Amino acid sequence: MKSAKERIYTAGLVVIGNEILSGRTEDKNISYVATSLNQAGIRLNEVRVIPDIEDEIVFAINYFRERFDYIFTTGGIGPTHDDITTQSIAKAFGVKNILNQEAYNILLEFYGSPEKINESRIRMAYAPEGSELIYNSLSKAPGFKKENVFILAGVPKIMMSMIDSIIPTLDKGKPLKSLEVDAAIPEGTIASSLSDIQDRYREVEIGSYPYYDNNKVGTVLVLRSTNEEILEKAKNEVVLLIKRFT
Amino acid sequence: MKSAKERIYTAGLVVIGNEILSGRTEDKNISYVATSLNQAGIRLNEVRVIPDIEDEIVFAINYFRERFDYIFTTGGIGPTHDDITTQSIAKAFGVKNILNQEAYNILLEFYGSPEKINESRIRMAYAPEGSELIYNSLSKAPGFKKENVFILAGVPKIMMSMIDSIIPTLDKGKPLKSLEVDAAIPEGTIASSLSDIQDRYREVEIGSYPYYDNNKVGTVLVLRSTNEEILEKAKNEVVLLIKRFT
Repeated sequence: MKSAKERIYTAGLVVIGNEILSGRTEDKNISYVATSLNQAGIRLNEVRVIPDIEDEIVFAINYFRERFDYIFTTGGIGPTHDDITTQSIAKAFGVKNILNQEAYNILLEFYGSPEKINESRIRMAYAPEGSELIYNSLSKAPGFKKENVFILAGVPKIMMSMIDSIIPTLDKGKPLKSLEVDAAIPEGTIASSLSDIQDRYREVEIGSYPYYDNNKVGTVLVLRSTNEEILEKAKNEVVLLIKRFT
Repeated sequence: MKSAKERIYTAGLVVIGNEILSGRTEDKNISYVATSLNQAGIRLNEVRVIPDIEDEIVFAINYFRERFDYIFTTGGIGPTHDDITTQSIAKAFGVKNILNQEAYNILLEFYGSPEKINESRIRMAYAPEGSELIYNSLSKAPGFKKENVFILAGVPKIMMSMIDSIIPTLDKGKPLKSLEVDAAIPEGTIASSLSDIQDRYREVEIGSYPYYDNNKVGTVLVLRSTNEEILEKAKNEVVLLIKRFT
């Protein structure tokens, strides 16, 4: 039986945004979240990019809540009509979306008076009942944590500062260590022997990624494991394998 | 009732790849697929990034097949042990993953002899029973079309050439036209009036995207519709709205 420390912590990411699905905006958040979580010892198991539609958000959140330790959402927490993330997540939890007094106070201090907050901006202080704040020094409007769901901004700079502040607070497992070997040979040449190595090293995940640069064909082999000793052994076998063909 | 020409065609994209979920590789395919489809008049409704696990692929494909006109997958069609896309999609359809003779002939011509194809590369000629080929001039290994599922390579250059060749062959609706207005004001200032405009223009989808550049705060308003005349009218209202605040 694995001890608590060895258990694998998992996460799902829900990117909420018509602008990504329309192609208008290139997503910059997925790779940052993926890298940050993996380095911290949390495995990102799935990403969904969905439109700004309440039912879609409710469905994705509830599906992920059943499966993963942590859920992160990006986007849809601003003041405009298309910002429906917190109300949708409140619905997913079956709670009310209510004015969070601490969030309101932050906005009040930032804008100076209740009139300047205005009816649109006040929406940014609403969150699912029972939420805690995730602070944001850039635009002041906070994100929210409701149980294991982290509701983050979509603007990359803000999202990144929010996730950087969250990760140290999470329970996490052993980080997955990663080693890469760049081979100047087509992956088909070594695929069969590589599969043998994979069969013998069950604790290591071996990925093979072909590339084509200026008519140069090559393959990057990526080995990942929480066990550094075994990782190193598997890597040595991969290096020896490549030497046989170069 | 809408005529057949006015119907909205929809698509889902399944990105199959541990390398994206681990953060090792930044995805370059989502935005290309999103832009290509939307320009062609096909609406990308959801993207899922899932790991190289058979059950996950089967689940995502079958869920998308029920909902969307077209499904695209990227990744996992190479010769190595982690390339399990075609076998998984065959399973989703409940058919066998069989040797496609035309794909085999292409590989045979490329590699020169059956021995050079080898047991790993021959996997690249297997596809769900009843598949058609999607040609690829770069590495020769083809993608496959099984009913409304398009099985594409993960390497961006190859994926892009495949999708470029597919799009002209698809049934599609009116393209969504898009207009942008860049406003040097925070979105909270205009959110309420913008919501009024959105309420009056149901045929137009209005998105609001804040940005923070060198301490400059601004908002890009994106208006999208298949009806160009109404789109132009809505845009003029947005421009007038912004003038009131600048």
